[in-house]
Amino acid sequence: MNITRKNFKETFPLIVESINEADFLAIDGEFTGLTNGRKSHSFDTPEERYHKLKEGTCDFLLVQFGLCTFTYKHEEKKYISKAYNFYIFPTPLNRQASDVRFLCQASSLDFLARQSFDFNKVFYEGIPYLNPAEEQSLSDALQERHNQSMNNELTYVSPSYESPAFKGPLVIPEEHKSFIADICKKIETFLKDEQETSLQLPVCTAYQRKLIYEAARKRFKMGIQLDTQTAENRDRFIVVKKASEEEKKLVEQKKREADWEELKDAVGFSNVIREITRSGKLVVGHNMMLDLMHVLHQFASPLPEDYEEFKSLAHCVFPRICDTKLMSSTNPFKVNIPMTDLGNLTKILERAPFAKPNIEFAAEEHSYSTVANQLHEAGYDAYITGLCFISMANFLGTFQVPIPSRIPANSPLLEPFVNKLYVMMVVDIPYMNLVGADLKPNRDHVFHVSFPASWRTSDIVQLFSAFGHVYIAWINDTSALVGLNYKDNAGLVMKTIGEGESYKIQTYKDYCQTTQVICQTTAVLKRKVDGSPPVKSPRPPKKRKSSGILNPDLPPTIPEEQEETEHEDLGEPLTKKLRESTTDGVVADIANGSSKGDCQLFSVPDTW
Amino acid sequence: MNITRKNFKETFPLIVESINEADFLAIDGEFTGLTNGRKSHSFDTPEERYHKLKEGTCDFLLVQFGLCTFTYKHEEKKYISKAYNFYIFPTPLNRQASDVRFLCQASSLDFLARQSFDFNKVFYEGIPYLNPAEEQSLSDALQERHNQSMNNELTYVSPSYESPAFKGPLVIPEEHKSFIADICKKIETFLKDEQETSLQLPVCTAYQRKLIYEAARKRFKMGIQLDTQTAENRDRFIVVKKASEEEKKLVEQKKREADWEELKDAVGFSNVIREITRSGKLVVGHNMMLDLMHVLHQFASPLPEDYEEFKSLAHCVFPRICDTKLMSSTNPFKVNIPMTDLGNLTKILERAPFAKPNIEFAAEEHSYSTVANQLHEAGYDAYITGLCFISMANFLGTFQVPIPSRIPANSPLLEPFVNKLYVMMVVDIPYMNLVGADLKPNRDHVFHVSFPASWRTSDIVQLFSAFGHVYIAWINDTSALVGLNYKDNAGLVMKTIGEGESYKIQTYKDYCQTTQVICQTTAVLKRKVDGSPPVKSPRPPKKRKSSGILNPDLPPTIPEEQEETEHEDLGEPLTKKLRESTTDGVVADIANGSSKGDCQLFSVPDTW
Repeated sequence: MNITRKNFKETFPLIVESINEADFLAIDGEFTGLTNGRKSHSFDTPEERYHKLKEGTCDFLLVQFGLCTFTYKHEEKKYISKAYNFYIFPTPLNRQASDVRFLCQASSLDFLARQSFDFNKVFYEGIPYLNPAEEQSLSDALQERHNQSMNNELTYVSPSYESPAFKGPLVIPEEHKSFIADICKKIETFLKDEQETSLQLPVCTAYQRKLIYEAARKRFKMGIQLDTQTAENRDRFIVVKKASEEEKKLVEQKKREADWEELKDAVGFSNVIREITRSGKLVVGHNMMLDLMHVLHQFASPLPEDYEEFKSLAHCVFPRICDTKLMSSTNPFKVNIPMTDLGNLTKILERAPFAKPNIEFAAEEHSYSTVANQLHEAGYDAYITGLCFISMANFLGTFQVPIPSRIPANSPLLEPFVNKLYVMMVVDIPYMNLVGADLKPNRDHVFHVSFPASWRTSDIVQLFSAFGHVYIAWINDTSALVGLNYKDNAGLVMKTIGEGESYKIQTYKDYCQTTQVICQTTAVLKRKVDGSPPVKSPRPPKKRKSSGILNPDLPPTIPEEQEETEHEDLGEPLTKKLRESTTDGVVADIANGSSKGDCQLFSVPDTW
Repeated sequence: MNITRKNFKETFPLIVESINEADFLAIDGEFTGLTNGRKSHSFDTPEERYHKLKEGTCDFLLVQFGLCTFTYKHEEKKYISKAYNFYIFPTPLNRQASDVRFLCQASSLDFLARQSFDFNKVFYEGIPYLNPAEEQSLSDALQERHNQSMNNELTYVSPSYESPAFKGPLVIPEEHKSFIADICKKIETFLKDEQETSLQLPVCTAYQRKLIYEAARKRFKMGIQLDTQTAENRDRFIVVKKASEEEKKLVEQKKREADWEELKDAVGFSNVIREITRSGKLVVGHNMMLDLMHVLHQFASPLPEDYEEFKSLAHCVFPRICDTKLMSSTNPFKVNIPMTDLGNLTKILERAPFAKPNIEFAAEEHSYSTVANQLHEAGYDAYITGLCFISMANFLGTFQVPIPSRIPANSPLLEPFVNKLYVMMVVDIPYMNLVGADLKPNRDHVFHVSFPASWRTSDIVQLFSAFGHVYIAWINDTSALVGLNYKDNAGLVMKTIGEGESYKIQTYKDYCQTTQVICQTTAVLKRKVDGSPPVKSPRPPKKRKSSGILNPDLPPTIPEEQEETEHEDLGEPLTKKLRESTTDGVVADIANGSSKGDCQLFSVPDTW
């Protein structure tokens, strides 16, 4: 169901009802762009990633928000879902309101256009929004304006905040004098004519209207009231009416009430987020870090400088979230899921060993078909994200005896995945933990190298050739992080190539200390350097909220063998790809897709 | 006539023809935003203004360009006009091409939306463009790619630049091995089947396609050819065909020609600007500084840091321009034109003492009606800008004996206005001179004041209260330029309030020196401090190109009295407004519209 400025107000109670009755909610956002500024790479810590995304992507705008609610009907053993697709745009309420500047990325708009995204709907009918601080500031300004106008002996009604009541008096410039005199004469005649009740003045500029207000205020002390109106063709003109002081006060009173109502309306879409927060329901998203950041930034509060503050903010607005990209890239799912982009994931989860969930739309207007490909419409993406979540949740149940008919959103089986956000590209830190410390894997095999701008991938490979294959994450034109595939060799690097004329090498640890990046040498997901499975981490305790160093890959009921595989898998893709892609002596910066050298392998990110 | 990506190529020859046959061209642009960063103010020099606009507005995008050509038919004594309305968008050609990030301003998009601007047309069908440097760089990259692929023993055809020919070999990851083996088996069967000529492989991801290309390259040395195709639903798949080496070479050859053609197409809209440059025709715009800067920035060259370089660039791309906003704000027009915004100007110029020009559209598809209000569609705005130009040009003719039937675009009467851009807000420097030095008026009555952030307009007024009324141009929260209305008092300021605890005052001259702003004390348009008419500047010599210190307000044929009035007018509006607006003791930053204090008077800029 498309929700725009036009039907938002009338639909809002239904949306609130849908949220409150739901078992869980799925969300998705569409943005005007994705990447800007510093590139993400596979050795980012979650904190570094946060800062990169904050700097680079929050200048883009979330213009479409999908919300799909899922309610389980026990009798019918099926979910009822309601999909809402919101178009969002920060039309400034008035001149006191901030006039948002936002960034667009040509390729992203082109991408959306190819998905038939309706930009006109965004800019023509987008629902406005205010975060609480903006709302407060506008509320203060409005209160002050009302107070000031109260203190004026005469008040005039102008819908565009042009009332001169709280501005200094103005003298009519020579070139406008005859025009204004003419208007005043018209008003005079009108006031004398007992039959006429209103007089429409000719269309004129904002400045001329300003002068008319001012002149009328001086000339006609009592008994009239001016009101600026807008014609269909956007021309603006003043209508003069006869009005007693009583009537004028009443009009002013109504105008004030309308002002407050208008401000309330301007909070707009932020109210949806507030309702989601209030509900405390589980919110599911796919690869949802960016969605979450945009939602917080636009509707809650500008993203904090401090990473821990961000975590608190995120947890406060979304007390319980679950990322299906993290689930699907973790075992017991991963072994059965070769592709985790949302489109493919949805298809894969319809087939064995998974099962298509039993879902029905509440009504025609809420419906999407998984057959008709509406991928990348936020409402549809939210819907299929919910489908994926249900399939995966239910799959966790298949390890139980007896197998339950469904796994509800509050099941302890899901706890290992709750409040963790998938971190793209980073293999040894798969998630950002919103309710505890992030994982800190051993990176003794990683080195920071700086070199002349002329260096290419091959120069770095050459430098490290004595230590076997390497994985390169470019930071910029003159530096990179280099990871050894054969970690046993780590101890030799500084001794043998630590000193060079044209380059400089640091251990990752030293690099982190110099750049004050949080980093530590002891890892939770400690892995032996020969690539064998890591030391097992303890099973997570069966409590509602996971925190700290839990391993997300360990749903408590997964059998032992499964667990082994999954441990094996967790750190595997990078080294596997590395080992294979380097067989022919070529190192490819696969995950990073850096275009330095010939390393850009993927044309379509597999990560939506 | 709307021109988009869909009809650009077929229409281009007609556009070129229209340009070449025209007497003059009128242009207009629509942008995704207008203001950002440092505020313009009324004491900006043209150079300062250039830098402010360059920093602040060139991050926005020109998304619609209007071109209207005007050709005079002597026999019929009328102009024939052709209006083109281009939708423009920098869809990246490929991954080598730059992926433009641009800024949008919410109020500007909202404004365009209210004018029924079709954003979908921009993002779906916008004509791409490349500036010459970008074109060269892509051309080099393409050449290199072709060279590399020539050196490969086997070539495959892939439309999305995924050809592995110039990338290192890749090993198939474990999880894809069975999929690839299956594909290879299919291809093998296909090759054996003499009846089949082509084989469509299943839809798969970019990465899988990459693997298929790679595997096929290794496995099937000769006789096959792979081609990635895109289904209507955007799914991509590989089609395998049997092909001899001859056929493959032919296909490769065609592919290369297509690559070059594609690059040529990608230059897109820039070709229109190149044709305009080539034609050397007079280009008319209304308040065209921003249009010009955007056009240069997007289609010619990123705007230079150096102001003089900008002037050269502008003059090089547009050898002959004329700004109707400058004309209409200058006498002999000004006395008859109370409002110079394009909409009002058009109406005013249809009535006496001006006359509606005799114009006809070349064909239905080029037509606009001035009755149907399509203001702010670039094609329409270009059209009415042309109308205004003709009316004003012809009006200049009315001072001649006998009155000519029309004043052509190359008439010497127009020379005073040629190659000068209107500078908004600045009263004592009405234009930027693209072919010579800018005006440098005396600003001895102007002072730079810095103060605590808590200061408001009233504090500054208070500080200067001994010197009469002042004009305030806010620079930021803690500094402003202050102009005395009674310039006689200028000498007293530093002596009496030059030292203060909470503030710091500098003369404008000192301020310019400290900020290294170009500035000088002798003025071309020197005015006596009591506000009487300035010393007359010499009449401009009657030569084709005006340069240096010409006064734009002196069309050579204007009678003496007219000239006086116009001199009087040139510096008048500011002081007049000031004098009047300060009668009641309130200083209003009228021209600037600064919102510090209560000074924001206009809701709609009168400057479009």
